[in-house]
Amino acid sequence: MTTYSAPIKDMMFLYEKMRNNKNYNEIEKYKEVTVDLVKNILEEAAKINQNIILPLAKSGDENPTVLENGIVRTPPGYKEAYKKFIEDGWTSLSCDPKYGGQGMPKTVSAFFDEMISSACLSFKLYSELSIGAYNCINHHAPEEIKNKFLPKMVEGKWSGTMCLTEPVCGTDLGLLKTKATEQSDGTFKLSGQKIFITSGDHDLTENIIHLVIARASDSPKGTKGISLFLVPKFIVKEDGTIGSRNGISTGSIESKMGIKGSATCVLNFDEATGYMIGPKNKGLNSMFTMMNLERIVVGIQGLGISEIAYQNSLNYAKERKQGKSNNSKETNGADPIIDHADIKKSLLNMKSIIEGERALCFWLSQQTEVSLNHTDEKVKQEASDFVSLMTPVVKSMFTDMGMEITSDAMQIHGGYGYTKDQGIEQLYRDNRITPIYEGTNSVQAIDLVFRKLVNKNGDVISRYIDTIKKDLSNNNKNLKFFIEKLDKSIDVLDKFTNWIKEKMKNSKDDVSSACNDYLKVLGLVATAHAWIKVLEVSYNDYDSNKEFYEEKIQTANFYFNRVLPRIESHYLSSISGSKYIMDFKFN
Amino acid sequence: MTTYSAPIKDMMFLYEKMRNNKNYNEIEKYKEVTVDLVKNILEEAAKINQNIILPLAKSGDENPTVLENGIVRTPPGYKEAYKKFIEDGWTSLSCDPKYGGQGMPKTVSAFFDEMISSACLSFKLYSELSIGAYNCINHHAPEEIKNKFLPKMVEGKWSGTMCLTEPVCGTDLGLLKTKATEQSDGTFKLSGQKIFITSGDHDLTENIIHLVIARASDSPKGTKGISLFLVPKFIVKEDGTIGSRNGISTGSIESKMGIKGSATCVLNFDEATGYMIGPKNKGLNSMFTMMNLERIVVGIQGLGISEIAYQNSLNYAKERKQGKSNNSKETNGADPIIDHADIKKSLLNMKSIIEGERALCFWLSQQTEVSLNHTDEKVKQEASDFVSLMTPVVKSMFTDMGMEITSDAMQIHGGYGYTKDQGIEQLYRDNRITPIYEGTNSVQAIDLVFRKLVNKNGDVISRYIDTIKKDLSNNNKNLKFFIEKLDKSIDVLDKFTNWIKEKMKNSKDDVSSACNDYLKVLGLVATAHAWIKVLEVSYNDYDSNKEFYEEKIQTANFYFNRVLPRIESHYLSSISGSKYIMDFKFN
Repeated sequence: MTTYSAPIKDMMFLYEKMRNNKNYNEIEKYKEVTVDLVKNILEEAAKINQNIILPLAKSGDENPTVLENGIVRTPPGYKEAYKKFIEDGWTSLSCDPKYGGQGMPKTVSAFFDEMISSACLSFKLYSELSIGAYNCINHHAPEEIKNKFLPKMVEGKWSGTMCLTEPVCGTDLGLLKTKATEQSDGTFKLSGQKIFITSGDHDLTENIIHLVIARASDSPKGTKGISLFLVPKFIVKEDGTIGSRNGISTGSIESKMGIKGSATCVLNFDEATGYMIGPKNKGLNSMFTMMNLERIVVGIQGLGISEIAYQNSLNYAKERKQGKSNNSKETNGADPIIDHADIKKSLLNMKSIIEGERALCFWLSQQTEVSLNHTDEKVKQEASDFVSLMTPVVKSMFTDMGMEITSDAMQIHGGYGYTKDQGIEQLYRDNRITPIYEGTNSVQAIDLVFRKLVNKNGDVISRYIDTIKKDLSNNNKNLKFFIEKLDKSIDVLDKFTNWIKEKMKNSKDDVSSACNDYLKVLGLVATAHAWIKVLEVSYNDYDSNKEFYEEKIQTANFYFNRVLPRIESHYLSSISGSKYIMDFKFN
Repeated sequence: MTTYSAPIKDMMFLYEKMRNNKNYNEIEKYKEVTVDLVKNILEEAAKINQNIILPLAKSGDENPTVLENGIVRTPPGYKEAYKKFIEDGWTSLSCDPKYGGQGMPKTVSAFFDEMISSACLSFKLYSELSIGAYNCINHHAPEEIKNKFLPKMVEGKWSGTMCLTEPVCGTDLGLLKTKATEQSDGTFKLSGQKIFITSGDHDLTENIIHLVIARASDSPKGTKGISLFLVPKFIVKEDGTIGSRNGISTGSIESKMGIKGSATCVLNFDEATGYMIGPKNKGLNSMFTMMNLERIVVGIQGLGISEIAYQNSLNYAKERKQGKSNNSKETNGADPIIDHADIKKSLLNMKSIIEGERALCFWLSQQTEVSLNHTDEKVKQEASDFVSLMTPVVKSMFTDMGMEITSDAMQIHGGYGYTKDQGIEQLYRDNRITPIYEGTNSVQAIDLVFRKLVNKNGDVISRYIDTIKKDLSNNNKNLKFFIEKLDKSIDVLDKFTNWIKEKMKNSKDDVSSACNDYLKVLGLVATAHAWIKVLEVSYNDYDSNKEFYEEKIQTANFYFNRVLPRIESHYLSSISGSKYIMDFKFN
């Protein structure tokens, strides 16, 4: 089985030392979220994740969730753990105190998301979608609905889902067929089939609140005729207690490569009672409030799984002895494999990506809070644009890197990585869903280039690149090497961006066939930028914690020497265009 | 379930049109292997692989091999299929007619290896190791042993294994502990434990012939005290019939991420009778005869799995409709996803890598035959050096590309790629062993840079690069674009090679930390070279089969535009050296 020790030191470094963000610091309600309070929360979070949630990973993989006589049963230990989880208030961490939440900012809850992703992704998904549904209801539903449903969801006694996909529509939701027929009392009856519904049914909570997109009987075809509905598994009575079962049944649960503890359901809606949330025919917009936050969390899943894969690889590399290293001083027997340059390189590759991503994610959490809570509309909008821009990047890059890192972890473990005992192959399988769900990484890349670079508020990508450039005008001579490297990379990003903008005018296929590469370049540059900000602090605050900062500087050094140069090939291959691709005739 | 149609057309193109290899054509015994004969063989091979072996993939994944009361039982259908398999003579394809084999060259048997890897890797492994053991016995054993064991192995009634790994030694075989004690009759008694033994025990054959490395009681420590022994599961009597059970028991079989139909065994040797094969204390050399050929076959496994992943992705992309493409003419509904530029790009990426690899592999098969059978020792040695050079490259590159291609196949299938029904996720899991076994890909890269670039016969890599350069002096103006691209890549390879040679003198860690990148660069260039030779034929023979050659040219075009540029980043990141890596202190 894997071991896990929550990286509290790095998280607290970010929370304590990387707070130099004027806009974020102006948010009134977070001023009382002190360093001590956060440290306390993370230490408690580490305990439940390390001791109670981590063992659920193996349990769920060996005893997947099953559907028995119409009841979905979660793996052994899930129920007991979930009870403790909600008793300790972890579902409510980032929710509004108005509904019983603890009102913590995403700068804190993202750390919790990372830890629980490391410990057991399958278990995490049962509460993750609840928070997604909570956010959506909180944004779009009328007060009456909010008061009726949110407190129980915040408490974790009821959970939530997002019901989008149908057999013929995944990426393309305009094709959906689920019908909603309005009743005389203003409610709707929903009929249709939804598939791939994460936590669609299970035995952990008293009720499940489904957010379902469907087409009202008088709505137009395509994406412009989609509305959003709240459809509970059990009808909730006026007094808030649970009433009769609604017309939803679980057709089957999917047999999957990984996350076997998570119930991925086929749900059949048969005249199920639902309540419209948000304006009619604007259901996709409402759902996307939830989807965008959710996509960042999927990125964090990739980060969390990367972290535990790295920790286990490091431990194994220190213990496993094979062969003599180039500088071996062993006269008898072999050296620990960490002394071999190729293994050490692989470990540093993981570490430099993980810590860079965590810093980038922290900045993104700050931006998200500014976009939701700042009082100045202009500041709010700019933060919102940056969050939009970076959402597909973080979702895709962190999950792709999660595959690279879990794969490298398997290589370091050799045959022991491929067999079940060590738990490494499970991390690889579990993480493999993250580049797929919430929109495949290719869909993210399309979203990035066609909708996020330039939007109705203008040239977002240029503003973002300018922000980075401003940070590079720093005169700290310690940063010179790093700034020069990043400067060159920004030249590539600039050229690539201009090429994309130019091709957008009359050669969209060039853009489509370059979008995955472009996303990777932007992600690598954004991570380098996050590293620059970490380096600033590391040099300025060096004497207060020499050992810690020296490690940061050397880790960054690896990133700039070995990871950042990947952008060159992405750029070079992309600008060859797409004519020869689109002209190709497959037999 | 996946579908599969053997790519006979491409294979026959290589066999028929790419035979312009003087040294290979001088091998007397293959002159009668006509195009018609090979076509016939491939058509029969396609039938058994498509109809009988392909369904075993799902069967074995759902009902893995089990150990019950000391007996290893293969999945449902394996026994019946194996019976047909050996009746039709497929185990004997490349074996010596002297022992009942069909004497086909590797230029033919490699195609069969590819097909059966596509159809079901787990099933393949039962006969693959037999052929490995056959080769090793045929090279190193005395006539008496050969006559006693080989005919039954060629017939497929007995199978073979390679027993190397032990709990504390995988890569580093010098650490092995299995002991062999010589008896008065010249036989040995072996005691010890071997792990990760592929096909170590099963119910498909009457006997299993283990090739075991062990240390004779009076041999020195380390790799210089290792000898090779033939240890049968059942003692074979003087008359060739099967006698009593030898002292070998199966401790357990591994539970693995994939290839679940393959029995990966822990074997306990307890005073088991064995016969020394080859000279004492030179066991590793003898074993490596087998290992090197085996490593190429592992590369072919990656190629085979890539091919079936590609075929299923192509079919799915033509059928699945989602979203409008940039040039959509659909007025109602969605386009097939193959019309989307990013998906089409992904399919062409697969195709251009697969066909390039197949051409490279065909050239390598020719070289292998020259290295084994040419009458001129000098020609033989040069071929042998090239085979040595390319063995780690083909093993690593084809298996890594297999991961890229099966992963991209999963992305194309979206959620349906992650669930079990379509069989895509199984290809991904099955292929994941290939970068690990027969020496991890990192071990291959170390082998390449430290042992293969320059060996006792001189500067092999320079001779290889010169060979490519000579082919680029072709004046065919159609090739100009391709030759210019490859020329630039060879500059990078040249610079990288010189850097490696320089660092080899006094900075071996620089070499170790660059070796994986160097292997990738060499592999990408070698594949481009294989494409150049395909292009030559395509232009020269264009009019005879316009449609086929046009497809080849366009596929090559993709490779040169989009795949080959990957070398840039590998080179750039590598030359940053290793000091900052080796100086890093992990806590």
